[in-house]
Amino acid sequence: MSEQRELKQEYQGQVLDHVIVHDGTGRTLPTVIIIPTVMGVQPLELGFAEKLNALGYHAVVADLFGRRFTPGVDKEAAFAAMGELRADRAALRDRLLAIVEEVRKREHVDSSKLAVIGYCFGGQCALDVARSGADVAAVASFHGLFDPCGLPAQPIKAKVLAMHGWDDPMVPPEVVVALGKELTECGADWQIHCYGHVGHGFTNPNAHQLGIKGVAFNEAAARRSWAALEDYLAEVLG
Amino acid sequence: MSEQRELKQEYQGQVLDHVIVHDGTGRTLPTVIIIPTVMGVQPLELGFAEKLNALGYHAVVADLFGRRFTPGVDKEAAFAAMGELRADRAALRDRLLAIVEEVRKREHVDSSKLAVIGYCFGGQCALDVARSGADVAAVASFHGLFDPCGLPAQPIKAKVLAMHGWDDPMVPPEVVVALGKELTECGADWQIHCYGHVGHGFTNPNAHQLGIKGVAFNEAAARRSWAALEDYLAEVLG
Repeated sequence: MSEQRELKQEYQGQVLDHVIVHDGTGRTLPTVIIIPTVMGVQPLELGFAEKLNALGYHAVVADLFGRRFTPGVDKEAAFAAMGELRADRAALRDRLLAIVEEVRKREHVDSSKLAVIGYCFGGQCALDVARSGADVAAVASFHGLFDPCGLPAQPIKAKVLAMHGWDDPMVPPEVVVALGKELTECGADWQIHCYGHVGHGFTNPNAHQLGIKGVAFNEAAARRSWAALEDYLAEVLG
Repeated sequence: MSEQRELKQEYQGQVLDHVIVHDGTGRTLPTVIIIPTVMGVQPLELGFAEKLNALGYHAVVADLFGRRFTPGVDKEAAFAAMGELRADRAALRDRLLAIVEEVRKREHVDSSKLAVIGYCFGGQCALDVARSGADVAAVASFHGLFDPCGLPAQPIKAKVLAMHGWDDPMVPPEVVVALGKELTECGADWQIHCYGHVGHGFTNPNAHQLGIKGVAFNEAAARRSWAALEDYLAEVLG
């Protein structure tokens, strides 16, 4: 059975309220950091964390925002907070790396076996961790934003897996091709999985509630991308 | 233990020498037709067939050429035979569909659970089976050629999975994007998995022996694409 525990982190005058999901045995395990969507720490991501726990990983659902809005309710505040973070990609990178280091030093976390995965905005964050050259085993993006961070290119050490809905209105095909080029030039060991007739937010059964055209749950893509993640984590954290 | 048995098919004055690989129990099982590379029926594809057999499928390694050359030796004859078949995509489609129907009617083949997979030229063939609108559950292409068949577009019933090396000199990124567009327009349930720093022929440990730039084995891509195939067949033939 999974147990949830608070993992508070002070960062630049804010308190980031991460949640660590563990199996209660006190074992040291490979650990997956989950960067949520724009809506912040939600039952959706906590559910993914429990599934990862069942597979033999600790999981940390990261709070990037310091809970400055009510998740699932205050959509405007959430998008404003995301816009703020996306406006300064160097500061966002530093925030992400601070979270990675905070997790790395925790008890029972196998510091050499860390992966960072993310959803939507969190997918972009996972890619930005890779782009920073950070020493993590792997990153994975689910329907992430692919736009480059604009910072000086670094050799990418982390393995990269991006799972992408081909009809995602925020990430058209030419941007997928550009990501392939970028990851190749940075030397990453990378994969991009594309799913036809699939839009943005495909892992989230409530995605349509955002009321944005092209943002919708897709059962097949959710299932296939999760299976791909399982294979991938077994490879990179095994 | 797998057993191999000849499956001869007369087709337009030729004898196609397919090989069926089965588990010897006489069970009716979902069946995978493997279309080989330009080099025809080879130990490589027979090995894949044995692995599929161990997963609970019958497998048929198809002979498209009527063994008109010595596999693995007569490279010029092989490329000439492939060129002949590729020059008339309607005739190639008919040949492929004849093979599918020949397999479908065999004893112990679950005729409602057929998949067609292929390698290189055989990957193109697998896609052409889907493009024909054929009633098969699924097709999969490993480092296949993506160029369209030029025949009138049909609604695609088969699920489609293409596994592709991003540095494949025969299939540049714009051709990948074009395939995504084509499959979307034909209504296919499709996936394309792209692998960075990977060329053509990545499943074949002897690919470099062809002596063609950009054609090489890639251990990670071979492993990852096989894992993707296992997940996919469990979904589409399960």
